[in-house]
Amino acid sequence: MRLRRIGIDTHRENIAFLANDDLTGRALGLHSMDRVEIVANSRRLVAVLNIVEGNVVPVGAIGLSNVAFEKLGVSDNSLVDVAPAEAPESLDSLRNKLLGRSLNSHDYEKVVEDIVQGRYSKVELTAFVVSATINGLNDDETEWLTRAMVNSGDQLKFDSTIVADKHSVGGVPGNRTTPIIASIAAAAGLLIPKTSSRSVTSPAGTADTLETMMNVELQADQIYEIVKKENGCLVWGGAVNLAPADDLIIQVEHSLVIDAQSLMISSILAKKKAAGATHVLLDIPVGYGTKAETLEKGEILKERFDRLGRRLGLELRVVLTDGSQPIGKGIGPALEAQDVIMVLTNNPEAPIDLREKSLYLAGQLLELAGMSTGQGHTRAQQILTSGEALDKFERIRTLQGRHEIPALGTYTKDILAEKNGKINAVDNRVISRIAQLAGAPHNSGAGIYLAHHVNDDIEKGELLVRIFAESEESLSFAARYCLENSDVIKIV
Amino acid sequence: MRLRRIGIDTHRENIAFLANDDLTGRALGLHSMDRVEIVANSRRLVAVLNIVEGNVVPVGAIGLSNVAFEKLGVSDNSLVDVAPAEAPESLDSLRNKLLGRSLNSHDYEKVVEDIVQGRYSKVELTAFVVSATINGLNDDETEWLTRAMVNSGDQLKFDSTIVADKHSVGGVPGNRTTPIIASIAAAAGLLIPKTSSRSVTSPAGTADTLETMMNVELQADQIYEIVKKENGCLVWGGAVNLAPADDLIIQVEHSLVIDAQSLMISSILAKKKAAGATHVLLDIPVGYGTKAETLEKGEILKERFDRLGRRLGLELRVVLTDGSQPIGKGIGPALEAQDVIMVLTNNPEAPIDLREKSLYLAGQLLELAGMSTGQGHTRAQQILTSGEALDKFERIRTLQGRHEIPALGTYTKDILAEKNGKINAVDNRVISRIAQLAGAPHNSGAGIYLAHHVNDDIEKGELLVRIFAESEESLSFAARYCLENSDVIKIV
Repeated sequence: MRLRRIGIDTHRENIAFLANDDLTGRALGLHSMDRVEIVANSRRLVAVLNIVEGNVVPVGAIGLSNVAFEKLGVSDNSLVDVAPAEAPESLDSLRNKLLGRSLNSHDYEKVVEDIVQGRYSKVELTAFVVSATINGLNDDETEWLTRAMVNSGDQLKFDSTIVADKHSVGGVPGNRTTPIIASIAAAAGLLIPKTSSRSVTSPAGTADTLETMMNVELQADQIYEIVKKENGCLVWGGAVNLAPADDLIIQVEHSLVIDAQSLMISSILAKKKAAGATHVLLDIPVGYGTKAETLEKGEILKERFDRLGRRLGLELRVVLTDGSQPIGKGIGPALEAQDVIMVLTNNPEAPIDLREKSLYLAGQLLELAGMSTGQGHTRAQQILTSGEALDKFERIRTLQGRHEIPALGTYTKDILAEKNGKINAVDNRVISRIAQLAGAPHNSGAGIYLAHHVNDDIEKGELLVRIFAESEESLSFAARYCLENSDVIKIV
Repeated sequence: MRLRRIGIDTHRENIAFLANDDLTGRALGLHSMDRVEIVANSRRLVAVLNIVEGNVVPVGAIGLSNVAFEKLGVSDNSLVDVAPAEAPESLDSLRNKLLGRSLNSHDYEKVVEDIVQGRYSKVELTAFVVSATINGLNDDETEWLTRAMVNSGDQLKFDSTIVADKHSVGGVPGNRTTPIIASIAAAAGLLIPKTSSRSVTSPAGTADTLETMMNVELQADQIYEIVKKENGCLVWGGAVNLAPADDLIIQVEHSLVIDAQSLMISSILAKKKAAGATHVLLDIPVGYGTKAETLEKGEILKERFDRLGRRLGLELRVVLTDGSQPIGKGIGPALEAQDVIMVLTNNPEAPIDLREKSLYLAGQLLELAGMSTGQGHTRAQQILTSGEALDKFERIRTLQGRHEIPALGTYTKDILAEKNGKINAVDNRVISRIAQLAGAPHNSGAGIYLAHHVNDDIEKGELLVRIFAESEESLSFAARYCLENSDVIKIV
């Protein structure tokens, strides 16, 4: 049959398209959702079949979705063989996990390989994620899954015995400490090739925020070059192919709004390991709407991270931090970038909480790496106050390319305090949702600016929050939701 | 935006297609897998978005998959509004089920409604099925799910206090008793509007078998007319919209090769209830490869069916039968049809096991319906032997239309016994797989003919099985698999 590229973005699932009146398809007894193998020269690919009507793919041709077409790697209109394919071997393991059995190291290697190769249909991938979520993974399994994820993609390697990294498990809006910590650590002489992610469920990921100020899509050789010169970088991890299975798993979790502990641990540690890290500082914010809603849950999570870190040969330091309210003033890519720059430039208006948390974590990271023992915080403060951190940030930014001032959305709406009092609580989830309705992270100038934090005194009529959007429509969505949830910021 | 029909068969999932360079899409911040609402006049539909390249759908247009297009029900090129849509309400229930909580009656109504309306993505539908499989459903939940499934589609109603039906939970190849039982029951004066399904996992469903002999795709009004005249019919249930959520759930189970007990019970009883049945005979074959591998498991399943039948107001009689080997000689649509006709015509070569099992079940059904108390088997035998059952079958067939002799595949391969001895076991699963590899049920003439059953004496060189296929290729697939599994029929 003739191969045709069908420009459908199927999120890494290999999909093949065949006309419903194609005689070859009928002779082979092919039906929608069957798995077919497509062979061209010595290359072969397994895809899930969609039977389509005449206008999508002509009779005598087999269509492939973007990702499948690229993977097969032969040109449009090539002659290919099409045959029914057996299900991937690892589906037995998937079924075992579903039935509550534990899998072994080899099983996870095969499952992850099949996921990365796009051999799982959406149904199968979902079944794996849901089974792992409900039945859980023990420590052995979590280790094996993590190792398999590391091995399934590219791995960065640095010529140093200490390669530092940090990660926050998330859930706290505005918590954009990474660019500040990385700048301090690199200025202190620590090797910190920082790869960050884009938002999956939040109004901004670190990569989204950085992107409003600089280029973050670098290839591995560019990363090596910049890190060699400046000890650090601030890039989007997605541009290098680190633990790619993780992205597919996260997408399913995201669309179901679930978050399995084992999968989260595996995801985080696999990304760190694949990025070449040896010393990792892990921030677990504790509070309503985070991944650890109580201190007790935080401690359990910390212990599990500690155990897995040891198994994977990582020097891991886990710290529990206050996640009860947003950090900083801005929530949304450009708004958070403004906060970061204010802290780095020692602007008197810089959010104190963001500055303090960044210094605390930077200090912890320096000490974890064996620098400034007992004096980490002081050293971090020196580097920030002296302008060394800003200088490091700017050097990295220059090498990465593009030097921009983060641009805020031009549609704004102010919400004012309705009474005098003291701010008692700020709801992380509602704040995130408002920022998302305003357009964050896709519209990078969108988001919400918090004029006050918990314990601030406030007077009736004073500015409480300002919503930023890039269109009238998004602004009104967000403003309506904000007004409907008037206790998002509780004044008592 | 302009509406375009995109001829992609998406298995009832509503899918919308938007060009990746469409400015409206960008302004709305739409991404692949987002949920969008499409509004035309007063009609609205929620679909999962696929972002596609230029050649699939033009800029300024929104494409809809077949099923979504039909559901929206406006003409091609109509003007429609497109906006981001909220996730269906019932996703909270889905998440609760995933987290191990029980759902209530209202939850199941909403879940089933959203499934039937195509509002669930593949990911969500799979998550529901897997969660229900792992976490199970208690009797309350199973009842509510069943009632919701009944309510979600059309329901047949007959003007009689006794409407008989029968069902086998399956797993035994060749077990084609239904046409025989229904013919006997209808001839005895029992109202039996028999709706059957096509194969999901087996080499033939009753509807596949019937279709080799007659038209089975009838609308409700045709069914009412035929049943009024002949007390019965033999149709494909899929042509009437009975418990449509069930088909979608089964598809997911099928592709994962899983089979949750609660979902199975719910599926079977919902179909019976929706078909208007009041008295249902349920056959649970017990044996390796069936849904009840041991007598103990069969008893547990029977008790659960009994409890649910009572809750749903059905007169249910559950019988456990021998499912240790295939029933009849043919496996595959046309081969099974031949067996059925041989039994109905009292052909001396008719498979004894199929005849005996059909008479036993027909007798049980007559007694369940309050006819021939204690004499059901004898009465059934009279009706079959006298030719009344055949006459009824032929009358129904004439009214349904198309009168065909089942045609067997013309490519055949004989497998002979390799030694003298006695047949000790026949493996249901391997037999089914051979028939499927030969092309059944899609190629209706394909399948496998079993010359012998367990306990038969056999001599070396005698015919053991004959494989039928409709192409050389399928035949060789099936023959190879058969030879690789030489102990499928064990001779000792």
